[in-house]
Amino acid sequence: MLSRQIAHKLRSYETPFYLYDTALLRQTLESVVYESKKYGYKVHYAIKANYDDRLLAIIREYGLGIDCASGNELRKAIEAGFDPKSIVYAGVGKRDKELRYAIENNILAINCESIEELRVADALSAEAGRVTDVALRINPDIDPKTNHCIDTGQADSKFGISYEEVLEHAEEIASFAHLRIVGLHLHIGSQIRELHVFENMCDKVNAIVANLEKLGFSFRFVDVGGGLGVNYDVPENEPIPNFASLFSIVHNHLSIGEREVHFEFGRSIVAECGELITSVLFNKTTATGRKLVIVDASMTELIRPALYGSYHNIENITSEAEGRDKYTIVGTACESTDVFDENVSLRKTQRGDLLTIKSAGAYGMSMASRYNLHDLPGAVYSDELQ
Amino acid sequence: MLSRQIAHKLRSYETPFYLYDTALLRQTLESVVYESKKYGYKVHYAIKANYDDRLLAIIREYGLGIDCASGNELRKAIEAGFDPKSIVYAGVGKRDKELRYAIENNILAINCESIEELRVADALSAEAGRVTDVALRINPDIDPKTNHCIDTGQADSKFGISYEEVLEHAEEIASFAHLRIVGLHLHIGSQIRELHVFENMCDKVNAIVANLEKLGFSFRFVDVGGGLGVNYDVPENEPIPNFASLFSIVHNHLSIGEREVHFEFGRSIVAECGELITSVLFNKTTATGRKLVIVDASMTELIRPALYGSYHNIENITSEAEGRDKYTIVGTACESTDVFDENVSLRKTQRGDLLTIKSAGAYGMSMASRYNLHDLPGAVYSDELQ
Repeated sequence: MLSRQIAHKLRSYETPFYLYDTALLRQTLESVVYESKKYGYKVHYAIKANYDDRLLAIIREYGLGIDCASGNELRKAIEAGFDPKSIVYAGVGKRDKELRYAIENNILAINCESIEELRVADALSAEAGRVTDVALRINPDIDPKTNHCIDTGQADSKFGISYEEVLEHAEEIASFAHLRIVGLHLHIGSQIRELHVFENMCDKVNAIVANLEKLGFSFRFVDVGGGLGVNYDVPENEPIPNFASLFSIVHNHLSIGEREVHFEFGRSIVAECGELITSVLFNKTTATGRKLVIVDASMTELIRPALYGSYHNIENITSEAEGRDKYTIVGTACESTDVFDENVSLRKTQRGDLLTIKSAGAYGMSMASRYNLHDLPGAVYSDELQ
Repeated sequence: MLSRQIAHKLRSYETPFYLYDTALLRQTLESVVYESKKYGYKVHYAIKANYDDRLLAIIREYGLGIDCASGNELRKAIEAGFDPKSIVYAGVGKRDKELRYAIENNILAINCESIEELRVADALSAEAGRVTDVALRINPDIDPKTNHCIDTGQADSKFGISYEEVLEHAEEIASFAHLRIVGLHLHIGSQIRELHVFENMCDKVNAIVANLEKLGFSFRFVDVGGGLGVNYDVPENEPIPNFASLFSIVHNHLSIGEREVHFEFGRSIVAECGELITSVLFNKTTATGRKLVIVDASMTELIRPALYGSYHNIENITSEAEGRDKYTIVGTACESTDVFDENVSLRKTQRGDLLTIKSAGAYGMSMASRYNLHDLPGAVYSDELQ
């Protein structure tokens, strides 16, 4: 969010690169920590959003835990210095070697997503001579009213165990000798901007906890996942997501007694502090009259527009022109889908100008590929630029 | 295509991995070389489809040239031993350093895709004290009747210079002192199965060549691109694409005298010789009754289903069960879009079974990412298994 002010300093770096506003990251972390402490809530950073070492070091300073989605993510979190007892590991498909690594490291909880996974986790824990803390990830069957590509909590999605299946297998689940069922985990989706959706989630959690505890389960914590959306449209209006409102809704609607409440935030922590800075290579006009701006970034650095049709606000941060024009911003990859956005109003744009593609701190670098043998983009941190 | 016969040998490799049938690759190359020689056509391999070193070495044996889409692809091709004079470099967004590298290496042609790129290529060639061979990539404005994500030749697409713009700038183009306009390049799209589309392309090429040569251009070659589709539905029925038909259509419809005709084939060379082999981790049933098979591959190894909704035929290559069932095959990535296919009829499938995801030799490994910090998949070659 600081690119226009420091645009002249950015000329010395090879584009495209990610620019991280570490001050904004710190403000965001201060907000989430301050607001969560009001209710004693615990916050995990969903590391899949961005693995950048410097960002992770900052996040660790603020005492967040980690939410992992693979064995390698777990290893990364441990190597970055996070306490294993602050790390949860979810994921629909965990390999044996990944489960073994999680068991050996005695993490806060493995969030199991199928009955079969529970059986395997029990067997591998027995092999390791351990009793492993696990949480049941239950599919909450809620429509999160978000992009269908990033919802995860509907009945038919691949995530979690269905509530019915938990009921059916309740006796078996309670009987695993090498598992301790310490938590319940739900996650309703991602990029949720209509916060009332979280009220439904709380009602669901209340019912599930009450019913399962009647069956003899005892949950030390409930992990209600993440999903808090960010403002991709006008990021300047809302650089820090409204954690206060989300926590307040959960506080007012969740009635699960003294159990710990955990959250997992990825996008809402890092999306707004990252931008993708790219240079304009060429302008051209199609036969239909569309004005194209060809930039040196592509879907290999930021795949969200191509993969989900996601919107990112784009600005020309070096043009001094008075007038504006409408452009289609396309990338270098040899793919028709490699279009960042159409009909973008920019100051008159020409070869050599720098554009920023905003709100790219989450699921940007972490989803990068080397298609077309593109080099992976570098990173520049705002505190280097002061 | 040989996975069922050798399934027992595949157990010793860590899944997921790409399995390449090098014998099928050789048969495919023999076919394309045999059929193209009938007409004296030159064939370039579109290296973006797959960069695997062993596959590249085999492709080189058969004398194909290379079609590149980036400076790094060009470097890769040169390092793999391809003669620079057999390499063309297309791409809407070429950086200065990429153009310089192409100019220095004196390749067959830089396929320029905008007037601005021609100006830059001329200036950089002047700097290097060279005269560079270039081809004009012209947007042919043809509907290729394929997935809109992979068409590249419509008037509004980002690829190529519009014919009108070439006319408008004809004098300038002819006047560049450090460029020699030696070729014309068109590419109408990818995965084209209705071959009559290529007839329209030929008509277009005939008209463009005739009109531009009247204006004083003189093309030594016409590169008509690629686009020949493969049979993703039942690959066994058509393991080698019908190069003969395509060449015959072009031969019958193209009337450009003695000029060289070049083709660029990526998918049609390597798609069918590659399969993604993956292990079943877990089975589960959603609340709606859908049977999920969770495999250890994901969109990080093969993104085509998630990115384009592409179909890949999937088979269980180790199950000995008599019965079959319908499954949804999902990957390990923490993404709802990470679904390989729905309603797949497989022999009864359980934990530990090996599945093959077929026709994955093109745009599989080359588009792989490390999202969720997944390791990149390995490769196994059929000739290792004999």
